[in-house]
Amino acid sequence: MPLTITQIGERKIKSPLIDKFHLNDMNFVKDEKRMLYNVMLLNQDASTIDSDLTFELAGPRETLHFEPENVTSAIVTCGGLCPGLNDVIRSIVMESYYRYGAKKIYGIRYGYNGLNPAKGYAPIELTPDHVRDIHMNGGTMLGSSRGGTDNMNILMDTLEKLKINILYTIGGDGTLKGAHEIARLAKERNLDLAVVGVPKTIDNDVSFIQRSFGFETAFSQAVHAIVTAHVEAKGAPNCIGLVKLMGRHSGFIAANATLAMNDVNFVLVPEVPFELDGENGLLKHLEKRLLERQHAVIVVAEGAGQNLIEQDSNVEKDASGNVKLKDIGLFLKERIEKYFKQKSIDMSLKYIDPSYMIRSSPAVPNDSIYCAQLGQYAVHAGMAGKTDLVIGQWNNNYTHVPIELAISKQRKINPNSRFWFTVLDATGQPEQMVNS
Amino acid sequence: MPLTITQIGERKIKSPLIDKFHLNDMNFVKDEKRMLYNVMLLNQDASTIDSDLTFELAGPRETLHFEPENVTSAIVTCGGLCPGLNDVIRSIVMESYYRYGAKKIYGIRYGYNGLNPAKGYAPIELTPDHVRDIHMNGGTMLGSSRGGTDNMNILMDTLEKLKINILYTIGGDGTLKGAHEIARLAKERNLDLAVVGVPKTIDNDVSFIQRSFGFETAFSQAVHAIVTAHVEAKGAPNCIGLVKLMGRHSGFIAANATLAMNDVNFVLVPEVPFELDGENGLLKHLEKRLLERQHAVIVVAEGAGQNLIEQDSNVEKDASGNVKLKDIGLFLKERIEKYFKQKSIDMSLKYIDPSYMIRSSPAVPNDSIYCAQLGQYAVHAGMAGKTDLVIGQWNNNYTHVPIELAISKQRKINPNSRFWFTVLDATGQPEQMVNS
Amino acid sequence: MPLTITQIGERKIKSPLIDKFHLNDMNFVKDEKRMLYNVMLLNQDASTIDSDLTFELAGPRETLHFEPENVTSAIVTCGGLCPGLNDVIRSIVMESYYRYGAKKIYGIRYGYNGLNPAKGYAPIELTPDHVRDIHMNGGTMLGSSRGGTDNMNILMDTLEKLKINILYTIGGDGTLKGAHEIARLAKERNLDLAVVGVPKTIDNDVSFIQRSFGFETAFSQAVHAIVTAHVEAKGAPNCIGLVKLMGRHSGFIAANATLAMNDVNFVLVPEVPFELDGENGLLKHLEKRLLERQHAVIVVAEGAGQNLIEQDSNVEKDASGNVKLKDIGLFLKERIEKYFKQKSIDMSLKYIDPSYMIRSSPAVPNDSIYCAQLGQYAVHAGMAGKTDLVIGQWNNNYTHVPIELAISKQRKINPNSRFWFTVLDATGQPEQMVNS
Amino acid sequence: MPLTITQIGERKIKSPLIDKFHLNDMNFVKDEKRMLYNVMLLNQDASTIDSDLTFELAGPRETLHFEPENVTSAIVTCGGLCPGLNDVIRSIVMESYYRYGAKKIYGIRYGYNGLNPAKGYAPIELTPDHVRDIHMNGGTMLGSSRGGTDNMNILMDTLEKLKINILYTIGGDGTLKGAHEIARLAKERNLDLAVVGVPKTIDNDVSFIQRSFGFETAFSQAVHAIVTAHVEAKGAPNCIGLVKLMGRHSGFIAANATLAMNDVNFVLVPEVPFELDGENGLLKHLEKRLLERQHAVIVVAEGAGQNLIEQDSNVEKDASGNVKLKDIGLFLKERIEKYFKQKSIDMSLKYIDPSYMIRSSPAVPNDSIYCAQLGQYAVHAGMAGKTDLVIGQWNNNYTHVPIELAISKQRKINPNSRFWFTVLDATGQPEQMVNS
Repeated sequence: MPLTITQIGERKIKSPLIDKFHLNDMNFVKDEKRMLYNVMLLNQDASTIDSDLTFELAGPRETLHFEPENVTSAIVTCGGLCPGLNDVIRSIVMESYYRYGAKKIYGIRYGYNGLNPAKGYAPIELTPDHVRDIHMNGGTMLGSSRGGTDNMNILMDTLEKLKINILYTIGGDGTLKGAHEIARLAKERNLDLAVVGVPKTIDNDVSFIQRSFGFETAFSQAVHAIVTAHVEAKGAPNCIGLVKLMGRHSGFIAANATLAMNDVNFVLVPEVPFELDGENGLLKHLEKRLLERQHAVIVVAEGAGQNLIEQDSNVEKDASGNVKLKDIGLFLKERIEKYFKQKSIDMSLKYIDPSYMIRSSPAVPNDSIYCAQLGQYAVHAGMAGKTDLVIGQWNNNYTHVPIELAISKQRKINPNSRFWFTVLDATGQPEQMVNS
Repeated sequence: MPLTITQIGERKIKSPLIDKFHLNDMNFVKDEKRMLYNVMLLNQDASTIDSDLTFELAGPRETLHFEPENVTSAIVTCGGLCPGLNDVIRSIVMESYYRYGAKKIYGIRYGYNGLNPAKGYAPIELTPDHVRDIHMNGGTMLGSSRGGTDNMNILMDTLEKLKINILYTIGGDGTLKGAHEIARLAKERNLDLAVVGVPKTIDNDVSFIQRSFGFETAFSQAVHAIVTAHVEAKGAPNCIGLVKLMGRHSGFIAANATLAMNDVNFVLVPEVPFELDGENGLLKHLEKRLLERQHAVIVVAEGAGQNLIEQDSNVEKDASGNVKLKDIGLFLKERIEKYFKQKSIDMSLKYIDPSYMIRSSPAVPNDSIYCAQLGQYAVHAGMAGKTDLVIGQWNNNYTHVPIELAISKQRKINPNSRFWFTVLDATGQPEQMVNS
Repeated sequence: MPLTITQIGERKIKSPLIDKFHLNDMNFVKDEKRMLYNVMLLNQDASTIDSDLTFELAGPRETLHFEPENVTSAIVTCGGLCPGLNDVIRSIVMESYYRYGAKKIYGIRYGYNGLNPAKGYAPIELTPDHVRDIHMNGGTMLGSSRGGTDNMNILMDTLEKLKINILYTIGGDGTLKGAHEIARLAKERNLDLAVVGVPKTIDNDVSFIQRSFGFETAFSQAVHAIVTAHVEAKGAPNCIGLVKLMGRHSGFIAANATLAMNDVNFVLVPEVPFELDGENGLLKHLEKRLLERQHAVIVVAEGAGQNLIEQDSNVEKDASGNVKLKDIGLFLKERIEKYFKQKSIDMSLKYIDPSYMIRSSPAVPNDSIYCAQLGQYAVHAGMAGKTDLVIGQWNNNYTHVPIELAISKQRKINPNSRFWFTVLDATGQPEQMVNS
Repeated sequence: MPLTITQIGERKIKSPLIDKFHLNDMNFVKDEKRMLYNVMLLNQDASTIDSDLTFELAGPRETLHFEPENVTSAIVTCGGLCPGLNDVIRSIVMESYYRYGAKKIYGIRYGYNGLNPAKGYAPIELTPDHVRDIHMNGGTMLGSSRGGTDNMNILMDTLEKLKINILYTIGGDGTLKGAHEIARLAKERNLDLAVVGVPKTIDNDVSFIQRSFGFETAFSQAVHAIVTAHVEAKGAPNCIGLVKLMGRHSGFIAANATLAMNDVNFVLVPEVPFELDGENGLLKHLEKRLLERQHAVIVVAEGAGQNLIEQDSNVEKDASGNVKLKDIGLFLKERIEKYFKQKSIDMSLKYIDPSYMIRSSPAVPNDSIYCAQLGQYAVHAGMAGKTDLVIGQWNNNYTHVPIELAISKQRKINPNSRFWFTVLDATGQPEQMVNS
């Protein structure tokens, strides 16, 4: 696995921060100083430390690759909305403009599609005045979209034509793959272009990065939906509040929201398979809960139980036999209602899907600060001419992570971890809901 | 139309408020003083005043029918959740207990069903300690449910057995019809029972009552959904944010939320028919908007456009030919997506249904105060032995409205009113979206 | 008392709303139709109605005095901040621009001072683009200030020079007096200038107007301070939470916040005198409360107990013998702490003054809508050439109130009213805290 | 510096978690596994790692010292309020009760004073029912107070009499010193008593602990005050919004709130001395800012500039020559107003002190989760018989920190750190405001 960050060329320019802030040595980061990935040791024995997996530290460099006042930058936001996007954009613009004196900054509209002239979304020029208050709003002032990477050459042509020196890409896996490819093609074309990613995944599922921006805002907002589900469930006899939350491959939002508001009885995540039927299935456990307490709250991550949908012979399939509807929330709603109807137990179910209301929120203050820092570190990296990397955080230090490493595997909840046991503890649900 | 309030018997008991608060004449309400419904006159000419339609005023009476310390009361909440239910319950308990010294108060669980012993929901006794903090939470501490009025005699038997003297019913049309019937049967059975309603309709659609509790909270909360829709719509190319709000028969929530947050381009309500197709249909107007501005926000009340669903031949119907799915939100989503697909215009639509999150909210402070007052006036009415009435508000005064009058017709948005023109003004949508 | 609205000249122009909205007769307001002030009658006897005190109705007129497209308007905000100022500004601009087609609108900066060239605050031109999102923020985009009316001729010169036809003044008593004077001088100078006021008093103390904008937001925000006081009071032994709220001459904010969050034990308002010492003084009652419950919450309106400060011989006075510090909150804090120290009772007091945090809030949705309507009605009045009036609301209808009437007396809490008894009920405090 | 955790006796009891959760080896924590304090290395050279300073890991132990079902625990909260106190209490009760089966838990009221029978605050017994919903409220359900440690023997007598085995102390420096002393005396008295601290400092100024609970809530709430200050400052000509925030010895709350809401022009913290007068003093810089922009926002931590108050000859002193008023906020207000008066520059200043509203808030979701975890880890430590320690977090792992180490020095902002440069960057204030 690559741990070294690619440098696009020489570094001969003296950083303007030296004079501006009287920064001393201490505050510039040297490439040689690295951070341990694993911080554990056994019996005070230093030889048990794993010193092979280390990260380069993010931060301002004393010498730069680019002359800041001549740099042309571009920012692009891709994929679904995530709290904090505007904070990151704002920070990159402010840092470039005021700290480094780099005043030519393009905003690429609607994701990578904005680099394709055929789409008709011309880049806009960004100044501090444009971005001053954008962090008060959710969403992204640039617009976003998925895809747009079908024909990389068109994108490269645009970057070349706009004379972009630093491209900041804010997006998830697909976006980072695109960024990696852009970095590769830039080298091929011999462009003086650094590609710096800020990884965006509301689900907090990037390995090697302890926390993704927007994640805290997401689970904090999700708390409102759980409160709703609880109020509704207690408001009618035998009532179930069912909340679907984000989390296609990992259940961190569902799990953290559950921990923050202890009114959930069952939390279902992609990492922990479960069955509906049988003595140890969800439906039976739900029935027991209803009979005992007359109400129940279920939180399900969107990626949970996908196998159940596939297996269900009643689920509508398209011509090729593929399941059409893969919405686990609606699937569960249907199956639960059917189950209790068959048992002649009067009940009601309130289904709540707050996803858009969550992801379109402005960042909570802690996320705002984090986004601002990510943006600043991205600019430090770009000005130094580092490329093909993302800005991460590990052991509370900001790091440079090669894109390839960052997208090499997703983080998931470990069902044998103390974290998950804590969640089980908070819900009181069985450790396993499968029939042997 | 009946305007006179029924009195269940003599009023000979001196109100305990006289001594407790040194209330003077001014603060007791006399039945003879009444309030005009219509407050307009022409050319300063008193003869143009309509003095026939008047309301009895709510408020403490100097003489009561019941001896407060011997009264047994019961409170029941029915139908769907509505912000402020707990505030009303709290207020009735506090007022009865502390102000009148009436300490026997039952909470009936899960609506009228709680008066049916077969359901197994025993009444609970309510004291100030039980209700002190309930207004901090949404929902109803008693639980609620629809129906339960199939066999009125069972309900009457329970009321008789529990020796209820005052029954406070908090609910909508169906509930009030039940309350009216209970009042009638109580007379038939010669019970010393007063029935006092607090009308509950989150949609604010009760005629003769200027404002229903929970309504302000509802449209205030709906604002978040509109903000979400706007952020999402601007976050992707050609994106539509579609919000479905409550309002089965009237569009007041949709209209007020639209006025409070001016980011809506089309608001659709039950009172104003619209068409989808044709040169002047919604779809064509939506297309124009998207082409001009690349984003749009639509707010639809759940009762809007029901005729369109009925007419649509593609909508799934059940064995008897009735439309199965009557959800205008999902219907619109489908039709809009289909339209743009046929036109080969790339777009996306984000559908937001915040209904449960809205109705389960705790009351905003202004609603809290209103609910507290409604509860107090209900107790004043009950103690005086007034029955078969609801507590209302008109011209900012609290009134007694006969149940029959209260349920005689629903209030709706008048499409020729200044109010509706103001809404049209806020959205910029065409006055009519029909092809004559 | 004058009830007739002054008209600055002929009305011959056909309203553009006729064509734009197909407004029918019903939606234009005729001057002859007026609204009763008092809505009560006795014994269904129409002769008991007081038909002398009536209001002209606000609303669009079929014929206008000004040609809208040639009108020059100006908006000025004066005095302290109040939630909703930006909403009113926004609404006046939008209504003038889009509905009437009047596109020349000045924003006067920092109150009447902005009309004095010597101050150096040049007017700014307002367009829909400037004001589109200002309602999301508290405060006023124009800035505000007190005074500036020392030399009215300078102000008149500026208005004349700018060729202002309609001046919208948003402010309190002092502002309205200034507006009245401007209207008078405009007549003297023979200017074609209408002066339309939107009364601003966060304290809701304008007679003849049922509700002032920003008031609901104010008491809603004040609820947070009361919750704080309660949490603090319960968090330490013998602890008192003391909250000072706005209300120089009337205690409506204090009273309504108390009703909305029932954790207050003593609410002190300007309208109800109280004493500190003696068997029936506040301090003795507070002591009893502390000994019984170990905590207490006091809410005091800033104008309460001013006589106590005057009388206190220990209060620091200036050279002329005037009391320097008139802050009732700090005065109470000092006196309470001293009292318990003398009694050797350990206690603590947490003093909370949330005034700025309250008044700088953006309007709650219900206030937003109200502000938007006030702005629209102000424009209707101005276009019709009505002058020397404010827009009010009575019996839920929008009215035209002559400025002289509006400022003729302040509304206050009536200590013998049911409203005040309800407040006493909520706190449990003695009806009177004076030693006969 | 001690790094080893004291164990009060043998560990022979098998943890009930083994059976309850099928916890495997991986999920129990071994004392031998420790965590590095410092995670940096140079040039991939393992010998540059500092492996001397390490922490014991927190977490469930396979063998316990106490038999859970026979344990008597007590919880005490001391000092000022801090968001999350109720979350920690709740978590300790829930974890003890449900996970370990330890059902005897006392809540000590009003801090250490509650262990002194003379004070009359009897302990209360805590069960899950008591604590289920307390995390929804700010403050502490137990009450809190400072001091109470004058006579340690009385406290020890009470602990002995109540047969307490595990004492959970939640408080700051003074509290921890008390806890350390209790641990020492327990050994002297040969009591089977473990003392486990959860460090509470809203200012986040504990060394060796990366984050203190409630801190995030604090700076998040402080954001509202900054927004207020900004709105007020822009609302009047030459207006300054001055916000005082918590931070007696460190300015982390002020600095983080500033980063989260970028509207601050000057942030003053205890770690960075500043002068008022002179060419490079705060007042001169403030004047420049006002002249340029007509408004300014200042945030001051309560511990900043204390030397200035001492030096000021005009400040009121008591008989012994000590400064009476040490409130930097009011001091600055006075000095700033005086300065501009002398310069005959009209201005106004709005002073905002939101401290109680901040510290009495319920925890934000991220803090809630953290508090819940701290409580659980405290119980794991207590059950294992570990004593004289606090639960901390470092490198995102939960740790055991000897009390002596935890209180050995405070964390402060390093004025030469990148963190502080980022803050300077956000405000644009001069790096130093002293006249050499």
